[in-house]
Amino acid sequence: MLIRAEKVIIITEKIISSRIIDYLESMDIKAYTIYKDVSGQGNRDIRSISGGLSRYGENIRLEVIIKDDEKAVKVVEKIYAKYLHSKYAGIIYIEDVRIIKQNEE
Amino acid sequence: MLIRAEKVIIITEKIISSRIIDYLESMDIKAYTIYKDVSGQGNRDIRSISGGLSRYGENIRLEVIIKDDEKAVKVVEKIYAKYLHSKYAGIIYIEDVRIIKQNEE
Amino acid sequence: MLIRAEKVIIITEKIISSRIIDYLESMDIKAYTIYKDVSGQGNRDIRSISGGLSRYGENIRLEVIIKDDEKAVKVVEKIYAKYLHSKYAGIIYIEDVRIIKQNEE
Repeated sequence: MLIRAEKVIIITEKIISSRIIDYLESMDIKAYTIYKDVSGQGNRDIRSISGGLSRYGENIRLEVIIKDDEKAVKVVEKIYAKYLHSKYAGIIYIEDVRIIKQNEE
Repeated sequence: MLIRAEKVIIITEKIISSRIIDYLESMDIKAYTIYKDVSGQGNRDIRSISGGLSRYGENIRLEVIIKDDEKAVKVVEKIYAKYLHSKYAGIIYIEDVRIIKQNEE
Repeated sequence: MLIRAEKVIIITEKIISSRIIDYLESMDIKAYTIYKDVSGQGNRDIRSISGGLSRYGENIRLEVIIKDDEKAVKVVEKIYAKYLHSKYAGIIYIEDVRIIKQNEE
């Protein structure tokens, strides 16, 4: 049986990935997937405080599945405000998914 | 013109990718995309029968588009039961997409 | 606050990526993400005019976020008609996402 869940996707500079993972773990989110071979072009002229440009070099895509929609929105708003609003190049967004309902639920 | 379809995403150990592709082909699903540079951390303490840990090393992301929702759900439940429920580390889920309607449809 | 947007995903041969990016820029779409380590198998027997086969070698996944749904559909139909309908191997589709509402909106 499938249930609805949310996928949060963060594409940003590699330099902040461990801080984002620490934050996710503090929110009890322990499962994630990382894609390393990612490049791109942002639409903002953010010069990252890491010294990178928005036409950024070393990036990652980080994905997590969060069952609770409210929690997913909170995570997105927090990471955006803390890292992506003005300090680092990147984008964050949510997608609806359907996953297997685990027995323990 | 766009029509609704389902995207099935499987992130799992590379060692079972050819068996999953064989199963997909047996279901008449012949088009797929593979992402190789994937790593991650699972939220279950599954020690894979391949010897891998849930903090797994060599992984793939496999994506297929399936037009029929019922078939997509069946594929997800089958792959989960056969490989991901207890034997191998990984996750499987469905996303709604819209694709171009082909002429022959 | 989150608002709805569309994500357009194009998986195709690397050889046409710069032409697709030029087209996206002509449509005022300046932000995109590229995944390079992608392979796959198409369900059509298209022999690309680049000389590639549908069991294609060097591919990319290109993603853009477009706020306006009508514009997203137009972009998908245009790229499909121009490149993927008969000339190059690949797939294009749309997913619904939710993104942060920027202050200037």
